[in-house]
Amino acid sequence: MTAYFKDFVISTVADRPSYHNVTEQVEQAIDKSKIKNGICLVQTAHTTCSVYFDEYMHDSNYYGDDYLHVDINHVLDKIVPRQSTENYPYLSPGPKHIAYGMKKNDPAYPAVEWTMLNTDGHIRADLLGNSVTLGIKDGKLMRGSVGSIFFVDFDQTRKRDRTVSVVIQGDE
Amino acid sequence: MTAYFKDFVISTVADRPSYHNVTEQVEQAIDKSKIKNGICLVQTAHTTCSVYFDEYMHDSNYYGDDYLHVDINHVLDKIVPRQSTENYPYLSPGPKHIAYGMKKNDPAYPAVEWTMLNTDGHIRADLLGNSVTLGIKDGKLMRGSVGSIFFVDFDQTRKRDRTVSVVIQGDE
Amino acid sequence: MTAYFKDFVISTVADRPSYHNVTEQVEQAIDKSKIKNGICLVQTAHTTCSVYFDEYMHDSNYYGDDYLHVDINHVLDKIVPRQSTENYPYLSPGPKHIAYGMKKNDPAYPAVEWTMLNTDGHIRADLLGNSVTLGIKDGKLMRGSVGSIFFVDFDQTRKRDRTVSVVIQGDE
Repeated sequence: MTAYFKDFVISTVADRPSYHNVTEQVEQAIDKSKIKNGICLVQTAHTTCSVYFDEYMHDSNYYGDDYLHVDINHVLDKIVPRQSTENYPYLSPGPKHIAYGMKKNDPAYPAVEWTMLNTDGHIRADLLGNSVTLGIKDGKLMRGSVGSIFFVDFDQTRKRDRTVSVVIQGDE
Repeated sequence: MTAYFKDFVISTVADRPSYHNVTEQVEQAIDKSKIKNGICLVQTAHTTCSVYFDEYMHDSNYYGDDYLHVDINHVLDKIVPRQSTENYPYLSPGPKHIAYGMKKNDPAYPAVEWTMLNTDGHIRADLLGNSVTLGIKDGKLMRGSVGSIFFVDFDQTRKRDRTVSVVIQGDE
Repeated sequence: MTAYFKDFVISTVADRPSYHNVTEQVEQAIDKSKIKNGICLVQTAHTTCSVYFDEYMHDSNYYGDDYLHVDINHVLDKIVPRQSTENYPYLSPGPKHIAYGMKKNDPAYPAVEWTMLNTDGHIRADLLGNSVTLGIKDGKLMRGSVGSIFFVDFDQTRKRDRTVSVVIQGDE
């Protein structure tokens, strides 16, 4: 039994949650791993992002968003409304966290206060979870006839490059 | 270290979410696997279904539903209301998905448009997740003194046979 | 490939959800396990508790609670309100479960009816889930630059000692 690792990068959109079907990349990783029986963990370490399991629904709106993703957004908009400013409707991020963020020096993402107003993204990601684990049997991902694995970035403040990691553990 | 697989089938009810305590089947699979130390993944590949971890609560209503499951339904009814017709309160399923579904030819489940009005089931399943992973130590599932594993089908449109899969990975 | 197990105990507070950053304990367990490549499951078997993945946010309120945890509480207070008495706003626990609980004989937690009025805790724990699974690569937990693992007890009725379990599976 061995472990195989594969990361891939997703380019997200701004101003709305950014959903991406990553099933094909996951299945390519399983093929490359040569692991035939075991488990497949698909995770993200970004704290405003989720990996979850659902179906591809064929129809999309004018923005190119799958109808089901738009429906998920409408449900989450009601229970975890988008953060409109500091101090409303969330306490976080507070002054210490803003100061911490302003000191970060990532040339790809210049530090600006409003980019940290993503508390809705954190809480939505907590609800959907940051990983999916599925079995691998006889070299096939156990996802049924219509199941797919989706990555979503709930941070709507800006577009970014995000990483999804696949960890495969089992026997060749 | 090795991987052991066991599927079992659950017959669901229609017109309300269908909850099933599957702990006994999972523990029987662990016994059969002879695996003593490792992890146990309990998953479903059905995209309107969840597997989650909670307690058996002893009392049930006139329908035979555990009080806690009725309480979960009441919470979810408010935030993810049942789909009453196409186009309300969800965009999904749209015309392309309906056309896709009508072409399916599963003799057990004849294609009818209204059977695809289950968007509430998809979103509820996203919130509760499609799997539970627990450790196995000295041959025992690490579920504490009262923890149980539940399968639930949130698709209320019709009764069906659904599959739950157990994947056990570890050492004998 | 081998499996390594480590439990640790968390002392919770009463009268509000009790959040605890357990990342350091998890990483100490990984170091002790000597496992370099594989997966790390962090789970709780308590049915009103969750383990979830998010960021430490630096600011805290007068109670010492991280702003983001207070924000999560406010979201959950609306959708899963705190149980105020038997029969409202939840059916559970019913008379059979109360009778079952009153027969328990745990000297650390004397049986009293009101301590079982924690249905909000059960449902909140279902939404956030009872475990986090992350990869371990080259001896490092794959949690990104700011990701942390949190344990939360949503049972607000009394303070208690709770157990978190780490299961690590992989190769040295």
